[in-house]
Amino acid sequence: MNSFGRIFRINIMGESHGDIVGVCIDGCPAGLELALEDFLLDLKRRQGGNIRGTTPRKEADMPTIKSGIFNNKTTGAPIYIEFINSNTRSADYQAIKTIPRPGHADFTAEIKYGGFQDFRGGGHFSGRLTVGLVAAGVIAKKILSPMKINANILEIGGETDLELGLQRAIEQKDSIGGIIECTVKEVPAGIGEHFFDSVESVISHIVFAIPAVKGIEFGSGFSAAKMFGSVHNDCFMDKDGHTNTNHSGGIIGGITSGNDIVFRIAVKPTSSTPKPQKSFNFETAQVEEFSIKGRHDVCIALRVPVILEAVTAIALLDLMLLGQKTPLVIKTNKCD
Amino acid sequence: MNSFGRIFRINIMGESHGDIVGVCIDGCPAGLELALEDFLLDLKRRQGGNIRGTTPRKEADMPTIKSGIFNNKTTGAPIYIEFINSNTRSADYQAIKTIPRPGHADFTAEIKYGGFQDFRGGGHFSGRLTVGLVAAGVIAKKILSPMKINANILEIGGETDLELGLQRAIEQKDSIGGIIECTVKEVPAGIGEHFFDSVESVISHIVFAIPAVKGIEFGSGFSAAKMFGSVHNDCFMDKDGHTNTNHSGGIIGGITSGNDIVFRIAVKPTSSTPKPQKSFNFETAQVEEFSIKGRHDVCIALRVPVILEAVTAIALLDLMLLGQKTPLVIKTNKCD
Amino acid sequence: MNSFGRIFRINIMGESHGDIVGVCIDGCPAGLELALEDFLLDLKRRQGGNIRGTTPRKEADMPTIKSGIFNNKTTGAPIYIEFINSNTRSADYQAIKTIPRPGHADFTAEIKYGGFQDFRGGGHFSGRLTVGLVAAGVIAKKILSPMKINANILEIGGETDLELGLQRAIEQKDSIGGIIECTVKEVPAGIGEHFFDSVESVISHIVFAIPAVKGIEFGSGFSAAKMFGSVHNDCFMDKDGHTNTNHSGGIIGGITSGNDIVFRIAVKPTSSTPKPQKSFNFETAQVEEFSIKGRHDVCIALRVPVILEAVTAIALLDLMLLGQKTPLVIKTNKCD
Amino acid sequence: MNSFGRIFRINIMGESHGDIVGVCIDGCPAGLELALEDFLLDLKRRQGGNIRGTTPRKEADMPTIKSGIFNNKTTGAPIYIEFINSNTRSADYQAIKTIPRPGHADFTAEIKYGGFQDFRGGGHFSGRLTVGLVAAGVIAKKILSPMKINANILEIGGETDLELGLQRAIEQKDSIGGIIECTVKEVPAGIGEHFFDSVESVISHIVFAIPAVKGIEFGSGFSAAKMFGSVHNDCFMDKDGHTNTNHSGGIIGGITSGNDIVFRIAVKPTSSTPKPQKSFNFETAQVEEFSIKGRHDVCIALRVPVILEAVTAIALLDLMLLGQKTPLVIKTNKCD
Repeated sequence: MNSFGRIFRINIMGESHGDIVGVCIDGCPAGLELALEDFLLDLKRRQGGNIRGTTPRKEADMPTIKSGIFNNKTTGAPIYIEFINSNTRSADYQAIKTIPRPGHADFTAEIKYGGFQDFRGGGHFSGRLTVGLVAAGVIAKKILSPMKINANILEIGGETDLELGLQRAIEQKDSIGGIIECTVKEVPAGIGEHFFDSVESVISHIVFAIPAVKGIEFGSGFSAAKMFGSVHNDCFMDKDGHTNTNHSGGIIGGITSGNDIVFRIAVKPTSSTPKPQKSFNFETAQVEEFSIKGRHDVCIALRVPVILEAVTAIALLDLMLLGQKTPLVIKTNKCD
Repeated sequence: MNSFGRIFRINIMGESHGDIVGVCIDGCPAGLELALEDFLLDLKRRQGGNIRGTTPRKEADMPTIKSGIFNNKTTGAPIYIEFINSNTRSADYQAIKTIPRPGHADFTAEIKYGGFQDFRGGGHFSGRLTVGLVAAGVIAKKILSPMKINANILEIGGETDLELGLQRAIEQKDSIGGIIECTVKEVPAGIGEHFFDSVESVISHIVFAIPAVKGIEFGSGFSAAKMFGSVHNDCFMDKDGHTNTNHSGGIIGGITSGNDIVFRIAVKPTSSTPKPQKSFNFETAQVEEFSIKGRHDVCIALRVPVILEAVTAIALLDLMLLGQKTPLVIKTNKCD
Repeated sequence: MNSFGRIFRINIMGESHGDIVGVCIDGCPAGLELALEDFLLDLKRRQGGNIRGTTPRKEADMPTIKSGIFNNKTTGAPIYIEFINSNTRSADYQAIKTIPRPGHADFTAEIKYGGFQDFRGGGHFSGRLTVGLVAAGVIAKKILSPMKINANILEIGGETDLELGLQRAIEQKDSIGGIIECTVKEVPAGIGEHFFDSVESVISHIVFAIPAVKGIEFGSGFSAAKMFGSVHNDCFMDKDGHTNTNHSGGIIGGITSGNDIVFRIAVKPTSSTPKPQKSFNFETAQVEEFSIKGRHDVCIALRVPVILEAVTAIALLDLMLLGQKTPLVIKTNKCD
Repeated sequence: MNSFGRIFRINIMGESHGDIVGVCIDGCPAGLELALEDFLLDLKRRQGGNIRGTTPRKEADMPTIKSGIFNNKTTGAPIYIEFINSNTRSADYQAIKTIPRPGHADFTAEIKYGGFQDFRGGGHFSGRLTVGLVAAGVIAKKILSPMKINANILEIGGETDLELGLQRAIEQKDSIGGIIECTVKEVPAGIGEHFFDSVESVISHIVFAIPAVKGIEFGSGFSAAKMFGSVHNDCFMDKDGHTNTNHSGGIIGGITSGNDIVFRIAVKPTSSTPKPQKSFNFETAQVEEFSIKGRHDVCIALRVPVILEAVTAIALLDLMLLGQKTPLVIKTNKCD
């Protein structure tokens, strides 16, 4: 479905070429100061059209907060934030029904929704929906604010010199992916639960909701599989649980240890590549060569860091609100 | 919490050195034939004590089905399966409270549960709880049965010659991790949802509930981040959505395409290594060298494949039961 | 929270005197024809200003469907429906913070949200939010369409002659409540689950989300408590489960029997009565007499029937989509 | 399904004539003292065989706590409590498949589970499952302990002289129902949420999970529908929200006001009446007279008060654990 979280709960809606995309945030504590300006920096970071290698489609991406705010503070009621789609060119997408684009959800959406899906620009499957994730992330980050969540690109197309990686793709008239690392500093120990609500479980759940993500690893991740235990184990150095190394990525037994949370994700190359490709034509029943039209990112990974920060904040906040550790003290309303 | 799933829902309980570990499975359709024998092969695959490199602790691991079965078939009511813990040596674990073991949940459990946790053998955090996952997986696999779910070890300690990897760890008196690949064949197209209930989201959520898993990648995963789009895109070859390559791991836009689901996980080395280690002693308030007692696996990854198959089956079955794609036809009970 | 349902899931948002009220409907099957006209009749039934005894506040209540529809059919993506608030007089409500109105949520909202709630016209607590329930109900009813859901007022202020009951209240310059009965015809047998997802549990859960509802009874309800078992038991008369009487209200063991579902609810009198009342003044710290301003219904129960139909449809549809009764048959995508 | 709650979560399992009935409680805070003795009084109150008018079937009802407790305190892990069924006479129930008993779930279970249900003694539908509710309620009450939850029978078979009501049923060789009132004292203000998680919604949801309950009303309930608003409104008398009357039953806008929570439920007469009844015989395809065998309560309502207290405690505790009202203060683990 289109919702995530149990206490801090988000709900996304809208289509790439419909009237709007939106996000509804339920469970936000009351009394948090919130203004339009809080959203602008992160929304700009996500936006296409600002960096070389991203889509020339430019949406104003100006949020309208339509509920849940009163006197510039959250009220405890659902916060609905809307973005108008103004810059759509739907005519670009009519061919999708006949030839599903490789790497895109055209085929699976057709199967899943029996042909009734809005196929224009990916419809509800579009990466455009992530604008709502970023908006919800702004709120989650603000609540978590002593914590610092930062995501950075480590590699583009296999190159740590990012400019070089991008250059190679542009020269080849192809698209390219990347690897992004997210670090959370000043994390309280004790967030998360063993087993099904481990920090890794909940973060990975929402991270794979970001289109184009195909892998995630915490701490040493896949490298850990090659280490000896004596090397991998992080030794506790003080009573607060600080460790001399951080191979665990700040999470042990599914629960934060108070050390930095560190994880990396793999973003596949943008499916829409300028190169001619082959796919099955459902009308002619033959595999045919075709080219993709529309405006696309050479490297979608360039826009992912701020989205990754947002979903990480959403996941951590929900886990914090869920967590209980000691017996409650009930304050009753006794008469007399 | 300790439950997973929305329609096919599992709930795990118990402690490593308590009376029992158990699993309760709710939402299993009625009428499925189910006998004790169905469980034995997978339980044996998970069991320690059978393979070199796994713990010498041997539990009989004989399941008792205490509810939900009548005349050898499921009834639609919750199925509760219990395993008695007989072979416990709790005295081994008294030191944990003073010196939390590196890589173990001792420290985070202490923080989370305020010192009230059962710390014997990891208590509720123990890998012993995965016996319940395997039992639930047997049922899920049976329901999904035309689908075939197989997990295999690709590497042990960085070696594809598994015997060699294990040998190296035993010689070094150290522990070691591994990489495991899971493949699902004969998958219907259309399982999963875009965004938060993507197949990747739901599988990774439950996969990270397996202790010691620190990474997951679908299809080409981290390698995809280095590819050009023209290489990564899988071309559709026929009307059923079969593709010439499978870089996507059988999942596009979060939904199965009908091609094989393929993913890999990274398992860190067993935290309990025979080597002396350093950790913080909460009594002396100093970092001290100490050695871990108890019986442990040199390579816990050796026991993970059957657990990985189980959780994959549980995740896929729940997604299938959730999915709806076309308008309902309601059959009413009209009097006339 | 502000969401209900597990498969057919609704989310309500907005405030009485804010910009909008809205509803987001997730989990609606794809391919359902849906036009603005489908909503108009039920919205008009709920609307104030049309019947004597209801509020003179008139909102256009024209829905805008902003997502989830393509080519006049549902797509399977979330359907977001918005209503603009145009006719607000917020100045009426400034006194609420000082003297909480008896019977209103002013006091409990203040406690719950620490004074940050939007108090204008009840804010997010307002009955205005039920316009979203009615819109979601229109969709649910359409999907369930061979079923017929009808709610009717049985009593106003204790009078079965409804005009008389209303007259009495208007003469007394007071407000008044009522009793409403809901009947669902042509119900399939087998909807609902024993225990926590009984039809009674799920219907009553959402029914008590309607402001002012204080009681519910199924079938013979409170009268059943005075009957002998031999009288109360409905005898099965044929193989379809039709019974000679319907004291059970069509639900046995939490599951529909195929007979009509019948239940009644009690709606308390509108809290805002024209009469002067007493309440605690938080500024003077004294109990004082005061009068309520603003535009209100003499009898809110008059507007409830269509809301009751809506929530009943939402509850039944979600239960139907949840229900599974026999082993699945999996259709796989086998190559060759 | 068979679970209830989001933070304090219970899961019930087992069958009337199977090996066990059990309850698993997840989300219980760590550090609560808990001993077998805590359960005995409430279990005895629920038990048949102690009061005239209840079933002669006597189960020992001795709970075994199989997980989640360590050193006599809760650990934060799931608490599984089991009850052995020893006193079963399954032969009594073979006829049910042919002639479904009026008022029982025999027919609806058959439809729902396609004939695979365990029909012996009602199987999983049996009131015997409520022993698990009572056990979970003991824990919830203990956590809530400054609050006082008491349920009492108001009427048996329409008589407030309970002995008289019971006498009438025994003389008539019939079964009988009753009305029970539950009061919660020393309630904090601010529990519950507007709309879908109103206190009324959540309490009624779990109350209708108790077999035989057919109605619920809060405060003045159905009588409120006959009152004028000026009479029904409870006037606030002090800054803590105490009111001069309690027509609202301590809940306004879905949220506790700090006044006593008061509600009443209607329990229908026991379906199994000693009188001969008519029902449809699926073998002969005719309506036939038949008599019910087995051991049953004349008045099941006599055993309900302690169950009602238990589910009320479970609902209130879960709502308290869910509730958040002001911005979080995050304590981070900053190194310096």
